[in-house]
Amino acid sequence: MRKIKLSPRQEEIIRLVKENEPITSKEIASKLNLTRAALRPDLAILTMTGILDAKPKVGYIYSQKPSYSLIYDYIRKIKAKDIMSKPVVVNEETTVYDAIVNLFLNDVGTLFIENDNFLVGAVSRKDFLKIAMGGTDTHKVPVGVIMTRMPNIVYVGKDDNAYTIAKKIIEHEVDSLPVVEKVFKDNKESFKIIGKVSKTNITRLFVRLGENG
Amino acid sequence: MRKIKLSPRQEEIIRLVKENEPITSKEIASKLNLTRAALRPDLAILTMTGILDAKPKVGYIYSQKPSYSLIYDYIRKIKAKDIMSKPVVVNEETTVYDAIVNLFLNDVGTLFIENDNFLVGAVSRKDFLKIAMGGTDTHKVPVGVIMTRMPNIVYVGKDDNAYTIAKKIIEHEVDSLPVVEKVFKDNKESFKIIGKVSKTNITRLFVRLGENG
Repeated sequence: MRKIKLSPRQEEIIRLVKENEPITSKEIASKLNLTRAALRPDLAILTMTGILDAKPKVGYIYSQKPSYSLIYDYIRKIKAKDIMSKPVVVNEETTVYDAIVNLFLNDVGTLFIENDNFLVGAVSRKDFLKIAMGGTDTHKVPVGVIMTRMPNIVYVGKDDNAYTIAKKIIEHEVDSLPVVEKVFKDNKESFKIIGKVSKTNITRLFVRLGENG
Repeated sequence: MRKIKLSPRQEEIIRLVKENEPITSKEIASKLNLTRAALRPDLAILTMTGILDAKPKVGYIYSQKPSYSLIYDYIRKIKAKDIMSKPVVVNEETTVYDAIVNLFLNDVGTLFIENDNFLVGAVSRKDFLKIAMGGTDTHKVPVGVIMTRMPNIVYVGKDDNAYTIAKKIIEHEVDSLPVVEKVFKDNKESFKIIGKVSKTNITRLFVRLGENG
């Protein structure tokens, strides 16, 4: 990763602003023994990168805020296909017991349920815990009976961006979203599951964003 | 939120580079009818913001990468105390059944367990599901018996930054970390639970980072 390399003069300007904010360009120029014209390119860079904030008629202040537009753009350039994991999928005829075993073996929080290779539902750890506490015979009941059923499953496409996905996860209060491909089957829209993006994938991406350059 | 406002000339330079990359500053200057000296401040801004990349002896290319250092700094300026939620805490004498009821009522994924107001353990939805499947009498067993016990709990302090927290969550494969305050009790280090940060908090922060300016 690349870092912005500031010149020694730019670092000196930042130090001056931190210590004297708000400070005018005239005052900075005088402290540095420079003309205001000579200072202009440096101040332009420091304000455009968001390191300094120029308040009209007040002066420059030090800003702790980054240039959000860069983060904004970056987060939107990362797609589901770049961060998705392998989904764990079971058939809707699977017993709840076997489904839970599958959940543990694969150490995931959500199972996606399919029928004839198409997405029909999803079950979370929370759903399973509710069922297990309710005294249901998990060896007899098929997972299809207890799953959240399409069309009530929130999903994303492989080109949906990380921001959109994270927003859907938060808004719909789910841990994981299936990444699907739409296909037409018997004249009806159906969905093939090609991946999943969970809060874990978003957290992992967050760590990647924050890694040292 | 603030966006970098590029000048029309800077936008024109980006367009030229996109269409002709790699392109030297001399070529850009000639296409714009400018001297290289006049162009220098604009090129400095565009490379320092990470929009253009200057390859020595090759020329300028368009870079899709943001200035990571800004994201890097920003993610480290956000602290646990800025993003933490209220933890759900039960006493270690609570039965597993009541603890699970508590988990559902508060709709959380992890319960923190205390004794005498100090953190002694944690139990996740996954732990509870394992117990519920195992045929344990959840009405009789206290949660203290099944919890992960200190010192095996990963925790953070209120001034730990979001990057550190997310990294701990991923490395230790947990959903949620308690935010604690160290105190000395009977000459021993003990921990008061003052909050929690989960993958949900990190995902929410990620959404906030990506919000439009």
